[in-house]
Amino acid sequence: MPPLSDHSPLALAQALIRCPSVTPEEGGALSFLADRLSRAGFSVERPVFSEPGTPDIQNLYARIGTAGPVLVFAGHTDVVPPGETEAWTHGPFSGEVADGFLYGRGAVDMKGGIACMLAATLAFLDRHGPDFGGSIAFLVTGDEEGPAVNGTVKLLDWAKARGERFDHCLLGEPTNPDTLGEMIKIGRRGSLTGRITVHGRQGHVAYPHRAENPIPGLLRLASALTADPLDGGTAHFDASNLEFTTIDVGNPATNVIPASAKAVFNVRFNDDWTADTLGAEIRRRLEAAAGNAVRFSLDLQPSNSPAFLTQPDAFVDRVADAIEAETGRRPALSTTGGTSDARFIKDACPVIEFGLVGRTMHETDERVAVADLDRLTAIYGRVLDAYF
Amino acid sequence: MPPLSDHSPLALAQALIRCPSVTPEEGGALSFLADRLSRAGFSVERPVFSEPGTPDIQNLYARIGTAGPVLVFAGHTDVVPPGETEAWTHGPFSGEVADGFLYGRGAVDMKGGIACMLAATLAFLDRHGPDFGGSIAFLVTGDEEGPAVNGTVKLLDWAKARGERFDHCLLGEPTNPDTLGEMIKIGRRGSLTGRITVHGRQGHVAYPHRAENPIPGLLRLASALTADPLDGGTAHFDASNLEFTTIDVGNPATNVIPASAKAVFNVRFNDDWTADTLGAEIRRRLEAAAGNAVRFSLDLQPSNSPAFLTQPDAFVDRVADAIEAETGRRPALSTTGGTSDARFIKDACPVIEFGLVGRTMHETDERVAVADLDRLTAIYGRVLDAYF
Repeated sequence: MPPLSDHSPLALAQALIRCPSVTPEEGGALSFLADRLSRAGFSVERPVFSEPGTPDIQNLYARIGTAGPVLVFAGHTDVVPPGETEAWTHGPFSGEVADGFLYGRGAVDMKGGIACMLAATLAFLDRHGPDFGGSIAFLVTGDEEGPAVNGTVKLLDWAKARGERFDHCLLGEPTNPDTLGEMIKIGRRGSLTGRITVHGRQGHVAYPHRAENPIPGLLRLASALTADPLDGGTAHFDASNLEFTTIDVGNPATNVIPASAKAVFNVRFNDDWTADTLGAEIRRRLEAAAGNAVRFSLDLQPSNSPAFLTQPDAFVDRVADAIEAETGRRPALSTTGGTSDARFIKDACPVIEFGLVGRTMHETDERVAVADLDRLTAIYGRVLDAYF
Repeated sequence: MPPLSDHSPLALAQALIRCPSVTPEEGGALSFLADRLSRAGFSVERPVFSEPGTPDIQNLYARIGTAGPVLVFAGHTDVVPPGETEAWTHGPFSGEVADGFLYGRGAVDMKGGIACMLAATLAFLDRHGPDFGGSIAFLVTGDEEGPAVNGTVKLLDWAKARGERFDHCLLGEPTNPDTLGEMIKIGRRGSLTGRITVHGRQGHVAYPHRAENPIPGLLRLASALTADPLDGGTAHFDASNLEFTTIDVGNPATNVIPASAKAVFNVRFNDDWTADTLGAEIRRRLEAAAGNAVRFSLDLQPSNSPAFLTQPDAFVDRVADAIEAETGRRPALSTTGGTSDARFIKDACPVIEFGLVGRTMHETDERVAVADLDRLTAIYGRVLDAYF
């Protein structure tokens, strides 16, 4: 095995995986990144953000260049917990390679992606030197998998206050379902959570006329919310989708009619809606189904996850071209999947997401094909070459 | 206040209420009863029944006379817990009288009823002596409000093994909803409890196509069970009624689709059904609703509460006549309400239930009108006079 150069995405990914940076721990991952970036000529800042009731979080902002345009590589070095360590074929923080795969928590989500961004940037600077006609910035948080309170949101505010302005952002989350090159994410659905409580009157099951069972009312309301689709999808978005995530009554007595029943739902909604208009529509449907027969309350959780879309433009084309050139695949422009920090970045500049294959993310034996690390590095390199 | 004679149902009820006989405690109540009955010439037995995992329970069987016919007074001296003692206007075990009401746990359910049976019997024996042309038996348990395992079921087996045979039984449970004389119970609905589990596949709410949410399936099955009535009622029974008593998923994560969802229901069913035929019909409805779309399991709890009916006959007429003569009301012959020990007694002899007004049973400030105690005693006395 040849010695790995500093620029090898595999070596960089291994080094990052070996940092046990389970949210909220920094685990050495940002320090490693800071060291490599500053050695490459970046000015590096390490702001720590705090909020009562949440752990302090370390973040990283690095920039090389003073002129525009400014291209931002964004991501996170924190990872979700490994779960049962013993269940892993190779230790979750070992960074071992077997059969062409690099194993470890964060291999695809998203230390692998960060490693490719870094490797591509270092190679680009090797090729072009510091005067490449613009600026490259790294915007990396340690709080994406956690409450996301002391991470990208505050890092963007902090950068804005310093006068930083960005032109485009590429977020390295794993976006490909099965094969590298399949999918760019150009937006994300919004997320809204609601709690329904149906109020009844407790009593004995043998005397239902003296009680008021809340469960049939809850069934009626739940059915009303799921009976008709919320919409038919939009130009770049699938139809909005509502899922009930739990129903809980907690009545242990089989001869007692309970006093109340609760259900929780979550909606992933498209750009037909804001959290406010969607909340109003949900309330309207519930009230129509309830009539005078069902007494209920609806508690809509404040949502900081709006639906957003980065309109396909020349930047998106450039990234798609780079992907096609490396993989032979023209990526789909998608808005599916869960939320990401792109929902915050979109207020600072146009942002799109492209990274590794996400299939094993958050799972035991999370792993990435070493060949994919090389290809993604090449893709990011082509983006840099085309951008500047 | 004049001194209360031994035969006063108020004095007897007060003495019983002052025995703290919360299930499984005997609290002195059966001893008091045994003492009064043996002094009146009854032979009294105090069998104690045991079962692994349940507390030992004291019971009482008393009989006067050796010839037939044998009329049984049945009931229980155990009571449900008083709850917050401080919330009572008069102590739950004080037996205080205020504004014409006797207060205390068990005042109506059913120490009051036992006191009336005892008072009526003592007065009857005073009038007729021991040779009244038949036998009177008392079948009293201390395990009606509890698991009902070491009570009436075993007491009946025990009596049968001794060769005891009964002709009719009057159970003194509170049967009147609002006013003494309104209602005799000539049967009871059966009770069947079932648990439905719908099996899905856990996943992220943002990727519902990769998961299988069990909640819509549970909504579908629950709706199918409650959509159409089980029956239209029978000659002496209301329609059978199904109530969902709880639904529980227990998923705390609003971004996770849960793996399974559970619901529990209880059916109070009429004599159109046995527990077996009803269970089969419920399974049929669930399978029809589930089709191939919903994977579920159904767990039907074994039921020892069949529906039963004591056909209205001369005995029922006699009791109804006695009620009408005392109260001016012809009682309704009803099969409503919860289960009672009559479900066991009906295998030994025809059994009907008539007692006090149940409105305050199991509640804080359970109480009985002193006038009702006197009237119920007079009714039971008329039954004895007519029976022998």
